Amino acid sequence: MALASWRCCSWLILLCAYTWGHPKPVDLKTEDVRNCSTSPQYLPMTAVNTTAQLTALREQMSTRNLSAYIIPDTDAHMNEYIGEHDKRRAWITGFTGSAGTAVVTMGKAGLWTDSRYWTQAEREMDCNWELHKEVGTFPIVNWLLTNISAGGRIGFDPSLFSIGSWESYNKSLQDSGRELVSITANLVDLVWGSERPPVPSEPIYILQEAFTGSTWQEKVSSIRSQMQKHHKAPTAVLLSALDETAWLFNLRSSDIPYNPFFYSYTLLTDSSIRLFVNKSRFNSETLHYLNSNCTGSMCVQLEDYSQVRDSVQTYATGAVRIWIGTSYTMYGLYKVIPKEKLVADTYSPVMVTKAVKNNKEQALLRASHVRDAVPMIRYLVWLEKNVPKGTVDEFSGAELLDKFRGEEKFSSGPSFQTISASGLNAALAHYSPTKEHHRKLSSDEMYLVDSGGQYWDGTTDITRTVHWGTPSAFQKEAYTRVLIGNIDLSRLVFPAATSGLAMEAFARRALWDVGLNYGHGTGHGIGNFLSVHEWPVGFQSSSITMGKGMFTSIEPGYYHDREFGIRLEDVAVVVEAKTKYPGTYLTFDVVSLVPYDRNLIDISLLSPEQLQYLNHYYQTIREKVGPELQQRQLLEEFEWLQKQTEPLSSRAPCTTSLASVLAVSTLAILNWNV
Amino acid sequence: MALASWRCCSWLILLCAYTWGHPKPVDLKTEDVRNCSTSPQYLPMTAVNTTAQLTALREQMSTRNLSAYIIPDTDAHMNEYIGEHDKRRAWITGFTGSAGTAVVTMGKAGLWTDSRYWTQAEREMDCNWELHKEVGTFPIVNWLLTNISAGGRIGFDPSLFSIGSWESYNKSLQDSGRELVSITANLVDLVWGSERPPVPSEPIYILQEAFTGSTWQEKVSSIRSQMQKHHKAPTAVLLSALDETAWLFNLRSSDIPYNPFFYSYTLLTDSSIRLFVNKSRFNSETLHYLNSNCTGSMCVQLEDYSQVRDSVQTYATGAVRIWIGTSYTMYGLYKVIPKEKLVADTYSPVMVTKAVKNNKEQALLRASHVRDAVPMIRYLVWLEKNVPKGTVDEFSGAELLDKFRGEEKFSSGPSFQTISASGLNAALAHYSPTKEHHRKLSSDEMYLVDSGGQYWDGTTDITRTVHWGTPSAFQKEAYTRVLIGNIDLSRLVFPAATSGLAMEAFARRALWDVGLNYGHGTGHGIGNFLSVHEWPVGFQSSSITMGKGMFTSIEPGYYHDREFGIRLEDVAVVVEAKTKYPGTYLTFDVVSLVPYDRNLIDISLLSPEQLQYLNHYYQTIREKVGPELQQRQLLEEFEWLQKQTEPLSSRAPCTTSLASVLAVSTLAILNWNV
Repeated sequence: MALASWRCCSWLILLCAYTWGHPKPVDLKTEDVRNCSTSPQYLPMTAVNTTAQLTALREQMSTRNLSAYIIPDTDAHMNEYIGEHDKRRAWITGFTGSAGTAVVTMGKAGLWTDSRYWTQAEREMDCNWELHKEVGTFPIVNWLLTNISAGGRIGFDPSLFSIGSWESYNKSLQDSGRELVSITANLVDLVWGSERPPVPSEPIYILQEAFTGSTWQEKVSSIRSQMQKHHKAPTAVLLSALDETAWLFNLRSSDIPYNPFFYSYTLLTDSSIRLFVNKSRFNSETLHYLNSNCTGSMCVQLEDYSQVRDSVQTYATGAVRIWIGTSYTMYGLYKVIPKEKLVADTYSPVMVTKAVKNNKEQALLRASHVRDAVPMIRYLVWLEKNVPKGTVDEFSGAELLDKFRGEEKFSSGPSFQTISASGLNAALAHYSPTKEHHRKLSSDEMYLVDSGGQYWDGTTDITRTVHWGTPSAFQKEAYTRVLIGNIDLSRLVFPAATSGLAMEAFARRALWDVGLNYGHGTGHGIGNFLSVHEWPVGFQSSSITMGKGMFTSIEPGYYHDREFGIRLEDVAVVVEAKTKYPGTYLTFDVVSLVPYDRNLIDISLLSPEQLQYLNHYYQTIREKVGPELQQRQLLEEFEWLQKQTEPLSSRAPCTTSLASVLAVSTLAILNWNV
Repeated sequence: MALASWRCCSWLILLCAYTWGHPKPVDLKTEDVRNCSTSPQYLPMTAVNTTAQLTALREQMSTRNLSAYIIPDTDAHMNEYIGEHDKRRAWITGFTGSAGTAVVTMGKAGLWTDSRYWTQAEREMDCNWELHKEVGTFPIVNWLLTNISAGGRIGFDPSLFSIGSWESYNKSLQDSGRELVSITANLVDLVWGSERPPVPSEPIYILQEAFTGSTWQEKVSSIRSQMQKHHKAPTAVLLSALDETAWLFNLRSSDIPYNPFFYSYTLLTDSSIRLFVNKSRFNSETLHYLNSNCTGSMCVQLEDYSQVRDSVQTYATGAVRIWIGTSYTMYGLYKVIPKEKLVADTYSPVMVTKAVKNNKEQALLRASHVRDAVPMIRYLVWLEKNVPKGTVDEFSGAELLDKFRGEEKFSSGPSFQTISASGLNAALAHYSPTKEHHRKLSSDEMYLVDSGGQYWDGTTDITRTVHWGTPSAFQKEAYTRVLIGNIDLSRLVFPAATSGLAMEAFARRALWDVGLNYGHGTGHGIGNFLSVHEWPVGFQSSSITMGKGMFTSIEPGYYHDREFGIRLEDVAVVVEAKTKYPGTYLTFDVVSLVPYDRNLIDISLLSPEQLQYLNHYYQTIREKVGPELQQRQLLEEFEWLQKQTEPLSSRAPCTTSLASVLAVSTLAILNWNV
């Protein structure tokens, strides 16, 4: 799944989208959208009346003497997916898109969102709201400076602002005469009141030992040992990201859609382990598992989730130093730690340790990917038979694929909402169909399916693009160039500790060559039954350098506005490369095992090395997935796999290239003295 | 010329050097170095007695109540090459290497330098000095914390500290109880007294209009227009880098070795132009050229160089905003500008505008490179005849090449000290021979020559590596892989505004493939009769994104410790690429025009596309340089050029690759059901 919906890097993705040309939004005139300039104003059925909630919010602002209040789209843990009770921005504006910031003053209300969501915002918001189409701090601050006078106070919830976000607003408003005011109570929550959905309270359960890389005690010891080795000698690590705590204790639950996490914080000190969570969610077995009845350095003390700020503040009064990951710790916790007691790295040691899968974790993740190929292949075979009948649509297709995945061993649901996009819908990189709005699949169109599963042993994510009829020459060329990008990055040999950013152009070069490109990132880390977009591995500027044992997706694409979209995504593990001369070199080993669409590959564009790589990959698929299919008596799928993975051979090997070389040589000989 | 000696990025280069394995320094035992642990201590003839200057410096420190004083290796303009009167660190320590920081306390004196200089430091320093082998702020601060007690004051000259350097020291010393104290008078200068070499005072001259891209008035108007368009509405731009002022006014002199600059600052405001310089260096023609006798917005007011700090401080008391480039403006000037009046970008608009050469500047730079090929070819032909006689050494060779360049039209000397390195000496990427220490050139060894010229129309920089005998298979392979890197980066097609960092791996991939690499940057910007290493173009993390009209070197290499070194460097201009599908795509057009060594190319490693590119390049060399040689009656050189640029053709086209593809295919067929 491409990264544009990865909340934490949204600025980066937007940058990419703007630089490389994001597909234009659908023409507003063709959609049923609001019209606030007519009298009476026109509001579609989908628009939400927000007058009451705005009035109530302004009352709250008034009692606190605020001229403006900022409502971001984040929760307190920088989660990619937001729980219902955390969808404050959606509730106050009516706009349900995943990215967008709202600001309310006494007289106005504005929403800032990017081009992906402009139409949706015009359909969902009433005329209380201005839609602003530039994103980032700067346009919001500019608007604030125009709309509130000097001396004005601008309120925000510190638990919903990242450190970086706070720094950005603070810097822009400095010397402006307007004050940025941290308000601990969330004003939207106060107004939302009893209508607000409850915080999840499902049991928190232990991930069986068979599915974990090491025990929580081993993990705690490892992190403590890193604390001791750090030159700033931190006495504690504060964990804010939900997957940090879930990974550390090998605990899971289902608070967040698609992510098996539970709301929590951890303060791991040199002598204690404090887990902030709703205690009632543990049963006696889990309490025993955590040694929660003792107080030694290997006993987990449970404290209430709401106590984290006060507890960290109290702890910080001692002779301590607290290690945090600044890219996802919220300003509300950051500001209670005195600066001289802060050990601030971009990522916590838990985040960095979790990124490198140990041998057992690698084996688990690989196994989940072998099994995950089965529902993918079942679905592709089923489509091949049923699409020509005209009975399949994007939504029912996605449902069937989710069903196939659900039948797999250790399945725990999809790892994100399946992207199932036919024809022009696939040109929008993150389109998902709904029960109401979807397109029929057809042999005359390309179809893109980007999906993944959560399994107890691993999280998966794969994209394939197919065409059951006769693709155009341009579609074949674009598909093949995307495939070449996937192959060239996958087979790259690189020195240890190379950054993803320094190598991701290999996934683009074949497209660049002819003036094509894609407007999203090239890949992201992935977890063992954790996030499908796992920090901090990947090809972004914020990613850490590549190391052995890291897993990343590799997913170049091409999106032709209003016509079609292509993405070929695999998950790969970083492994040691065997080089001719000695040295520590790495490469990728692709663990996703589903063949590409032969119907869309123009073999003449592949170099002998690329073809060799592809045939080797197909051989691996046969070896690993073939037996899985046979075991389950999926004989039709097995036959299909054999056919799809038959070795490809170049039809016109070298002749073209050789001829062109000779032509140039001749030219050179003839012309040298011109 | 590779970047390791580019002062402004030294931290980056060192990082590269350490990550990718810098050649090990020569064994200390084999050199005549100091031994401070024996009694009596042993000092080589080359060591400098620094007792007197240290005593005098400590007296100065004492009167200012300083516990320590930091002496960096920079001057006030972050120049790459340092004038004699600015070599304070060398004078106080005895150590003359280009990189290294000295710190003096009342009882101790320490020098911090990187591995390139350890031996040299042990030869040049007496036993007053400790040699520290870790570099960066952190080890220096650690040492300071150990060696001076709480309450201690650490002095530094604010005009020799970059903003970044000050921030780094300040942050590390915060809350340590030690105070960082800015001392405007330089204490080393006070001690150095009359022995200090004089500041250069050669005339400053006007670069003829034929050699400039536009008049200074046009440049001033363009920068003022950028000031008006900037969202922070700066009222002035402050120029600290010497090439900024030289470029803006089309003036040149010779204050800095290899760089035609003069000590100066410029404060360009919306209504005035203030040039800080030694006024006596202008003749009446130049004064007239600058309209220095009037006071309008297009008249240049001359103020004394030493007045810049006071003048900026006075200007900053008004309702103004001053735009600076933070990466090279010194802390001394930065701190006199109130924060709210600062418009701080990494690079000033002059730096960024200068980076994009206009059509005339491009034509000038291209022309200088065509002419520059002549001395290079003359030298290569001469070497081919004379090396086998055993009469050529690195130093005399370099002298001859410099002489050949000096005979070219518009020549103004070399653009840096010629790197002329035979055999194992070339494994040290920045080795230069001296009259005393050099190696004989031999047909049994590889030879690397990295050199460039200053011409009135352009600055050049080119590296070629040759072998006149029978290279080993490994040498040929390494050379060819370096060449492939040069070719693959040069022929890359990429979207406008791609960063150099995102594409430089194309210059490394062929080496990475077999476990080889190089430990320096891949290229740097270059000027029109300005710096050979011109900010901010290149492939570093600090470089701006690539745009049409920028010139950069492309210079992959390979260094085999204690055996040989290879570097193939060309200068290229960023041009529009013609792509199959429409879009704004760019590529490089190589303007250096000297053939590579056929004796070292293993054609079987080149793909048809690489071979085609190479033959096309050779054809261009023939077309452009051939006539130059003929014009000058250099017929032997002309014949040599024809021979060297004969089209190359693949000897065994495709058979190997094809065979291996077929082999894998067969394997796949046989093994699919294993």
